[in-house]
Amino acid sequence: MPITLKELAERCNARLEGGDTTALIHSAADITAAQTGQVTQLTNNRYARYIKNSSASACFVAESTSLEDKPEALALLVCADPEMSFIKAVELLHPDRVYSARIAPQAVIETDVALGNAVYIGPYAVIGDQTIIGDHSQILAGVYVGRNVKIGKHCRIHPYAVIYDDTVIGDHVIIHSGAIIGADGFGYKFRNNRHVKVPQVGNVIIEDHVEVGANTCVDRGALGSTLIGAGSKIDNLVQIGHNNKVGKNVIMCGLTGVSGSCTIGDYVILAGSSGVADHVNIGQGAVVMARSGVAGDIEAGTQVFGSPAKEKRVAYKEHVAISKLPELLKTVKLLEEKIQQLEQKTQS
Amino acid sequence: MPITLKELAERCNARLEGGDTTALIHSAADITAAQTGQVTQLTNNRYARYIKNSSASACFVAESTSLEDKPEALALLVCADPEMSFIKAVELLHPDRVYSARIAPQAVIETDVALGNAVYIGPYAVIGDQTIIGDHSQILAGVYVGRNVKIGKHCRIHPYAVIYDDTVIGDHVIIHSGAIIGADGFGYKFRNNRHVKVPQVGNVIIEDHVEVGANTCVDRGALGSTLIGAGSKIDNLVQIGHNNKVGKNVIMCGLTGVSGSCTIGDYVILAGSSGVADHVNIGQGAVVMARSGVAGDIEAGTQVFGSPAKEKRVAYKEHVAISKLPELLKTVKLLEEKIQQLEQKTQS
Amino acid sequence: MPITLKELAERCNARLEGGDTTALIHSAADITAAQTGQVTQLTNNRYARYIKNSSASACFVAESTSLEDKPEALALLVCADPEMSFIKAVELLHPDRVYSARIAPQAVIETDVALGNAVYIGPYAVIGDQTIIGDHSQILAGVYVGRNVKIGKHCRIHPYAVIYDDTVIGDHVIIHSGAIIGADGFGYKFRNNRHVKVPQVGNVIIEDHVEVGANTCVDRGALGSTLIGAGSKIDNLVQIGHNNKVGKNVIMCGLTGVSGSCTIGDYVILAGSSGVADHVNIGQGAVVMARSGVAGDIEAGTQVFGSPAKEKRVAYKEHVAISKLPELLKTVKLLEEKIQQLEQKTQS
Repeated sequence: MPITLKELAERCNARLEGGDTTALIHSAADITAAQTGQVTQLTNNRYARYIKNSSASACFVAESTSLEDKPEALALLVCADPEMSFIKAVELLHPDRVYSARIAPQAVIETDVALGNAVYIGPYAVIGDQTIIGDHSQILAGVYVGRNVKIGKHCRIHPYAVIYDDTVIGDHVIIHSGAIIGADGFGYKFRNNRHVKVPQVGNVIIEDHVEVGANTCVDRGALGSTLIGAGSKIDNLVQIGHNNKVGKNVIMCGLTGVSGSCTIGDYVILAGSSGVADHVNIGQGAVVMARSGVAGDIEAGTQVFGSPAKEKRVAYKEHVAISKLPELLKTVKLLEEKIQQLEQKTQS
Repeated sequence: MPITLKELAERCNARLEGGDTTALIHSAADITAAQTGQVTQLTNNRYARYIKNSSASACFVAESTSLEDKPEALALLVCADPEMSFIKAVELLHPDRVYSARIAPQAVIETDVALGNAVYIGPYAVIGDQTIIGDHSQILAGVYVGRNVKIGKHCRIHPYAVIYDDTVIGDHVIIHSGAIIGADGFGYKFRNNRHVKVPQVGNVIIEDHVEVGANTCVDRGALGSTLIGAGSKIDNLVQIGHNNKVGKNVIMCGLTGVSGSCTIGDYVILAGSSGVADHVNIGQGAVVMARSGVAGDIEAGTQVFGSPAKEKRVAYKEHVAISKLPELLKTVKLLEEKIQQLEQKTQS
Repeated sequence: MPITLKELAERCNARLEGGDTTALIHSAADITAAQTGQVTQLTNNRYARYIKNSSASACFVAESTSLEDKPEALALLVCADPEMSFIKAVELLHPDRVYSARIAPQAVIETDVALGNAVYIGPYAVIGDQTIIGDHSQILAGVYVGRNVKIGKHCRIHPYAVIYDDTVIGDHVIIHSGAIIGADGFGYKFRNNRHVKVPQVGNVIIEDHVEVGANTCVDRGALGSTLIGAGSKIDNLVQIGHNNKVGKNVIMCGLTGVSGSCTIGDYVILAGSSGVADHVNIGQGAVVMARSGVAGDIEAGTQVFGSPAKEKRVAYKEHVAISKLPELLKTVKLLEEKIQQLEQKTQS
């Protein structure tokens, strides 16, 4: 749905400099690709060189930005926070798909289900007994929701996500396809040469504004709950084991694993393919860098790297040292010879 | 379903010490969280400090445990194996969900399907031609079972697990949601600058008492079978490639990958995010520690760590040495200078 | 469907040496397992020792192969390329399952859907508005295809794969169960102490002859497309983030992750559990070895190992050096003592 440059500027809190205020903008694009009729953003000086030859009709920039070589046809949308204004523009130009209130005839709604207002339930979805789904929530095709589940308002659960029994989900939660919430935790006791399953009778609690990526797994507690704090964002293919307490506004990138019974502080970042052993506490705001493995507690605000993970500065110093190690071996060999010669000299 | 303390003790092979034998216990909880009406366990001395202020009504303890500061109201359930007795209590107090024998009208059952007694088939499940499902097995909503599959007795397959054609599954097997059993192995031959697919015409065999985690993948054999031995337990998001022979009572933790054509001995443990290259043999009882990558055969009983994985003792010694490396570089630098001085002295 | 040895030889471009031309071959097997009535291949000398006692009826071998101790009953199928001839034999003896043209009555086909000739749509599949599916493509049970999706000819999408809105898929593409194509990329801006979602309004383009493994995720672009080039083969449980440009004939093994906005050149190999940070360029034909983490650009043709990944030769030299490090520490300790002694001597 195209809108004029003038309206775009107004709705995105930007001041228009140059360009034709009546020009229609139909979509948003990256600065490397934007064409006539498209709006883009410049928020990183690395990309300033693309401006000169850009065919874009408009570009969000910060107040402080000075652009030489700006094409005549490119309007500047000057604003306090170009990234946020651009997000606003993308939302206007590429509106989110609407799922109007409707219960698909092919959905199975079991007994004692409480559906809020304006709920969408897609075809082949299954909603278990005693489950509650809040207003404006969208349960897309084929989603399985177990028994005694609570889903808040304004949630979107994508096709074939699975929500096991007893899960509690807050408001404005997004769960992507293939995510499995509440499967059994991985717990066994070894007796008589076999692994005896420990019953996993807890649940999962996901607070407001959480996003869970595709094919990510969050296991139910053995007893008690596995908790994902409000505002936390979890990427695809992440494994969160039983009884973890994940804080608020945590970031977990793809292919990361958190074993079990860990406490992950607010604002922690677990970068891609990282891992955390069980019963570990990670302090608020700590950063576990990509591919790192955390085996012990991490203090708040610390950045760690490696496997086993160490404080970043230490780990980097070791990595630099390792790169000098082959040379060091030769040096020491040489020193040995020299010392031998010195010993011979001084003995003689 | 609450039961009296007396009955709980009897059914869990415990001797009651103190407490009100007629008190009702309604659920189980961790020692850090248990309240009145709940039973807990103390199996690790680290947690003994929680006993003093616990509101729990009862606690399983070993015969040998001596507790000072036990609250008056806390009954002890003294037994030979508190962990096993507690598991029994959890099963009594939190009984597993029952799926009564029923074929949901929304299930698709293809031709020549043999269903045992008391089988449950959930809505939107699809059961392919010539497939056999044993007595008391539960195929939950939306499970896809291909053609010519055999599923034993007392299995539970959770929603949206996918069982490809020709898979053979034993008795008492649990497969969690999103697990994919029998997809094509990853095999190509490179010819004329492109990858030619090698047909994957084998199958997967899963023996009795195996548990397969959510979103885990077990690929079919290229020719012959990929095998998961009896009693093995596989966590979420594990990749098991074609033609692996996984032994009995093996443990594989989350995000682990086993390439292909490996032999994994009985009782092997692959800890979280570990990996095994193809055609590798791992001997009985070996332990691959978290995040380790195994590139060559591992002898029975060995513990290995790192990537490439080495015997634990060796890997640890190297890690300690690496932490001394930055200092070592300085030391050697100093020695070089001293030797130079010595050389000058002795030459003069 | 058994065929005679004579016909097998003809259809697989092989010359028959020995054996009964009228003998029936019913299946293919590995050289370690093949029995009477089965055909096998010998393409690796390591396995030549299995020939002597093999009960196989026939074996593909290269022109140059000379076999001593060949059993009388074993026919040789001599050919220019035994691997390719054997693939042909496997295809003949184990024909791929046929899904005849049919729209299952339990499928939901939304409005303005264009289905080609001879298309198969399985039960409980959902095909969204304005979607196009090409001739002979097979959309198996429970596949979810969103709105405005294009799927080419001769594709097979396995049960419960999910194709989000706007995805474009070429011809002869195979997508395995649980694969999620086009879920939102992982993008947020941090404002006022919370993570603000960046709308993900791009799409995924998958070119011809791509195979996508089970439970693999390919995220849609934030703006623009995430691209998987023709002929690329992606294993199970792989994470491909938004706006990556994956070249042609690329191989990505299980549990690998590519963050976002990377360029992966043609013929690149990402081995198992490897990872690539965002905005990285990997040159044509480069190989990232298993469990390696790439943080910076990689030149074409290079092999890299480790985390952070280094040129293989360098990484290996460092690994050898590390194994000598504990000994080196002792040596340097000894040298320090000797130098001290020398210093004392020369001072005196």
